[in-house]
Amino acid sequence: MKLGDGVEQAIHSVAMLAGLSDDGVLSAAALAAFHGVSTSYLLKHLQALSGAGILATVPGPKGGYRLAKATHRITLLDIVLAVEGPAPAFRCNEIRQRGPSPVGAHMFAKPCNISAAMLKAERVYRAELAKTTIADIGVQLTALDDGSIAARSCAFLEIHERRTAR
Amino acid sequence: MKLGDGVEQAIHSVAMLAGLSDDGVLSAAALAAFHGVSTSYLLKHLQALSGAGILATVPGPKGGYRLAKATHRITLLDIVLAVEGPAPAFRCNEIRQRGPSPVGAHMFAKPCNISAAMLKAERVYRAELAKTTIADIGVQLTALDDGSIAARSCAFLEIHERRTAR
Repeated sequence: MKLGDGVEQAIHSVAMLAGLSDDGVLSAAALAAFHGVSTSYLLKHLQALSGAGILATVPGPKGGYRLAKATHRITLLDIVLAVEGPAPAFRCNEIRQRGPSPVGAHMFAKPCNISAAMLKAERVYRAELAKTTIADIGVQLTALDDGSIAARSCAFLEIHERRTAR
Repeated sequence: MKLGDGVEQAIHSVAMLAGLSDDGVLSAAALAAFHGVSTSYLLKHLQALSGAGILATVPGPKGGYRLAKATHRITLLDIVLAVEGPAPAFRCNEIRQRGPSPVGAHMFAKPCNISAAMLKAERVYRAELAKTTIADIGVQLTALDDGSIAARSCAFLEIHERRTAR
């Protein structure tokens, strides 16, 4: 089972945008610089997050990204599905129906029980991801922080945040 | 999140091998023919299942595969980990430590809370997969079957099963 590198980048980017002022945005280049990743690669994921209604885009040379909704309404599941797509990890190709001596189609009216067990585990996985919001991530980070992580983010935002009329 | 096609093939193959006589084996070619898949591709997964101690291999021209342990001791998780490898789906590249104005290393002694939340969901996923055994899959299939699925498997095994002294 594999998730792309974009998931880590997307979650950290959303968490970073949670620190903006009400009328602030950050460019993709600034988000990429802060996380030490490729801007073009990150841009793809930021666009996926916009498409999923997690981020809002302010166009133009002074534009950038901000959150489209409150941090307690954005879950890790929302971000994973935006970046990775909604398809289940387990793909059932119905190989049970192939091969010699086919069985009558009525026997395949119900989903394969192997597929059902695999998809049940994915539902449990998704439900667990849906329990953690970006607001929770922020609270947890604050509890760990001796002040240096917050100071670093604030110093970066002071230089790179763009103010825009909403 | 993605699982390879090999997972479906591996689970169905293990379930098929559960129907063998005590001294029976099936060749990779027969397993591939029954499931309508490529022998060379399936072989890779059968070897992974052998490496994980789920299947036993009987070498030679009359050889093949059989289960290496009882069906109630083989879980879907065992098969998924054998085929996909043990690495977590979420890869933390520690991008929190990159970028400008590094924070002191002591702040990164504990795992990132984003990584911790992602890995917690994977533990829940794996625990769910570990609840279903190949014995369960067999019982569920029998409950669904009007007899035609069992008849098909038996007819196939009658032709293709190889008897071998254990």
